[in-house]
Amino acid sequence: MSVIKDIVITPVAFHDMPLLNSVGVHEPFALRSIIEVTTPNNKIYGLGESYGDSAHLLRLQNAANELKGLSVYDTNAIYKACVESLAVDATSGGDGMAGMVTTASVADKVFSPFEVACLDIQGKLAGIPVSELLGGRVRDSVAYSAYLFYKWAGHPGQPDDEYGEALDPAGIVKQARKIIDEYGFKAIKLKGGVFPPAQEVAAIKALHAAFPGVPLRLDPNAAWTVETSKWVARELQGIVEYLEDPAPEIEGMAAVAKEAALLTPNNMPLATNMAVVAFSHLPPSIAQNAVQVVLSDHHFWGGLRKSQTLAAICAIWGMRLSMHSNSHLGISLAAMTHLAAATPNLDYACDTHWPWKRAEEDVVFEGALKWNGEGGVVVPTSPGLGVELDREKLAKLHRQYLDCGVTKRDDTAYMRRFRPEFSPHIPRW
Amino acid sequence: MSVIKDIVITPVAFHDMPLLNSVGVHEPFALRSIIEVTTPNNKIYGLGESYGDSAHLLRLQNAANELKGLSVYDTNAIYKACVESLAVDATSGGDGMAGMVTTASVADKVFSPFEVACLDIQGKLAGIPVSELLGGRVRDSVAYSAYLFYKWAGHPGQPDDEYGEALDPAGIVKQARKIIDEYGFKAIKLKGGVFPPAQEVAAIKALHAAFPGVPLRLDPNAAWTVETSKWVARELQGIVEYLEDPAPEIEGMAAVAKEAALLTPNNMPLATNMAVVAFSHLPPSIAQNAVQVVLSDHHFWGGLRKSQTLAAICAIWGMRLSMHSNSHLGISLAAMTHLAAATPNLDYACDTHWPWKRAEEDVVFEGALKWNGEGGVVVPTSPGLGVELDREKLAKLHRQYLDCGVTKRDDTAYMRRFRPEFSPHIPRW
Repeated sequence: MSVIKDIVITPVAFHDMPLLNSVGVHEPFALRSIIEVTTPNNKIYGLGESYGDSAHLLRLQNAANELKGLSVYDTNAIYKACVESLAVDATSGGDGMAGMVTTASVADKVFSPFEVACLDIQGKLAGIPVSELLGGRVRDSVAYSAYLFYKWAGHPGQPDDEYGEALDPAGIVKQARKIIDEYGFKAIKLKGGVFPPAQEVAAIKALHAAFPGVPLRLDPNAAWTVETSKWVARELQGIVEYLEDPAPEIEGMAAVAKEAALLTPNNMPLATNMAVVAFSHLPPSIAQNAVQVVLSDHHFWGGLRKSQTLAAICAIWGMRLSMHSNSHLGISLAAMTHLAAATPNLDYACDTHWPWKRAEEDVVFEGALKWNGEGGVVVPTSPGLGVELDREKLAKLHRQYLDCGVTKRDDTAYMRRFRPEFSPHIPRW
Repeated sequence: MSVIKDIVITPVAFHDMPLLNSVGVHEPFALRSIIEVTTPNNKIYGLGESYGDSAHLLRLQNAANELKGLSVYDTNAIYKACVESLAVDATSGGDGMAGMVTTASVADKVFSPFEVACLDIQGKLAGIPVSELLGGRVRDSVAYSAYLFYKWAGHPGQPDDEYGEALDPAGIVKQARKIIDEYGFKAIKLKGGVFPPAQEVAAIKALHAAFPGVPLRLDPNAAWTVETSKWVARELQGIVEYLEDPAPEIEGMAAVAKEAALLTPNNMPLATNMAVVAFSHLPPSIAQNAVQVVLSDHHFWGGLRKSQTLAAICAIWGMRLSMHSNSHLGISLAAMTHLAAATPNLDYACDTHWPWKRAEEDVVFEGALKWNGEGGVVVPTSPGLGVELDREKLAKLHRQYLDCGVTKRDDTAYMRRFRPEFSPHIPRW
């Protein structure tokens, strides 16, 4: 009863807001793939969620074709089948991360949603939540951070959205106020790389003044040179808990870290979800002490158990652990929450794009994922991931995918529709 | 139904032969602890096996007292309880490894048999073998090596044992012939550190001549200086697949490795189960490229899942993986076999002391663990570890424990009864 009977992959689109970053601006729709793994027991199925770009969808489907009949426990065989299915097409990219995480292992990205779905099934079969399969939850709720973005008031040609414009420090503070009022987040992350560094430093300082004591982070997505990064590190030491991907590549991060580690009275840890995004990046990064915090992400680190391996490596080498997010739906939030709950050495509030999504747009039934009013999600305790597919909602978002015409994430092309001169080249400053 | 109801720890003793090593000679009895974890379902219980020294037994019992009522899935809580139970007694040693692996994590050693027993239960509950819980078996049988020892003909004052004397190259070749005739092993390991290096090099060369093409290993348990180790590496390059723990400590191994890696036409990989025996040893060892092969051992690496983390780390950093053994019974052999079966990057035949044990002395029913005639154990496919407790045999080995008077492993003291001048000091040559 524990073999894979069939796999259905459904691309979906959900409304997104014009969130700015170093490579452009979010389009009106974000894409995801919803993976449903069925078993011979009609009541037992598993869910996974991944990127929705057409290239990734094709890879997922090619892999899915090879997985039927395998045991949901046999992740070694499932991984091998994924790798073999990629033999013809082992290129990177096309994964919905807008060129920001292009060197992650393609096999790990393809394998991830199938592994999550299989763990969902394993949990359901055993009658235990995924967090317990992963070693047991060490916390009953998982803290997330307020993920702030510079943004336009609305998509060009459309009415303003509920968050409105945020293009300066005052706008960012206002946005933080709104998002924290609603969710109660206890940590704040600002996506930077949009304006000259001095303005973004000013925004962080404004947040520091408005929310004294709240841990802050700034993430310019490698938009700065090493020298600029060092300047920001000096400016923000003692104000942010870490500086995320200031400069490109392991070498750039290592050069910044060398000085940031020596800052007094507070050193400045560097975090990454760009320079270190695959297991093969760990040896060179560790050898150079390039980063002090790794943002894990089960979508590209090869699923939940491999993310636990990453967590173990962080503990062994004295790196700290945080969690990265892309725009996502409820299945991913459930998986992130179970993983975070079972990870003893998770040191920071996890990132999530959740507030930027319309509440009614999802693919799972409402109610399974509860925000606790303090920026945390209560860890589901029902078997598996604890979320169930709402087929009506899924059909609606799939229809939206078919209608919206978006087939890959391209923040740069969308930005250039309005600012033809825009260049995503980094480092910019 | 998946909580720990009770834990019974039974010390046992089984006959051992006078096997020589760098710190002395095996006593007439080897000790083990047998861990039985029960659940509210009387039919479902789990088995673990660990060291049998009195100090370790006390630690196991102290930990066991804290585990009742915990979920068998909640290894995070079980580990935490083990750590807390050690707060009063966090010393090392007393673990049945005769001073050869003294800096391994005590908590990992205490946790290990409980984790194995919990995985046994998890497998039984899910109706799947432990290898499948661990990600699925990538091989149907697990290859072990012929583990040769210099030895006396029998224990002093007792009749010769079935293997007889092996104190020179000819004796070692004869021993290899006998053990390979019986089991069909396809790889050979010689425990050295007993005679001057030239004699042990001669024994390896004699094995190479007698068994052309069979992979060989020599393990003097750090009995050599760096200079001696380099000499042996030059002598045996191209003849052994790796040199195991030639010199003491990470620094010693690193100094040997620096030269061994440059040998032509064959470099000489160094393996260890002494210099790197805990996760905290990995960063300094890797930074110095001290070892190229790690011998894992779930008994001191914190159980099966943590051993998988070690395996993943070896894959990431390009180290190869083998497996260490102490004198053990069937529960350990089952656990080792499941782990090895589910580890894709296991590069060598595993070590086992199995042939040195009397066939009739065990604590599990015969038949579950089948040797395949080619030096391999067929991976059990029944739920859990696939071995069941034979209470009659257990009672007999426990009685033997009570009667034999041995309460800790002390190869040196036993050797000194016959050779008062013996010194276990290493490096000796």
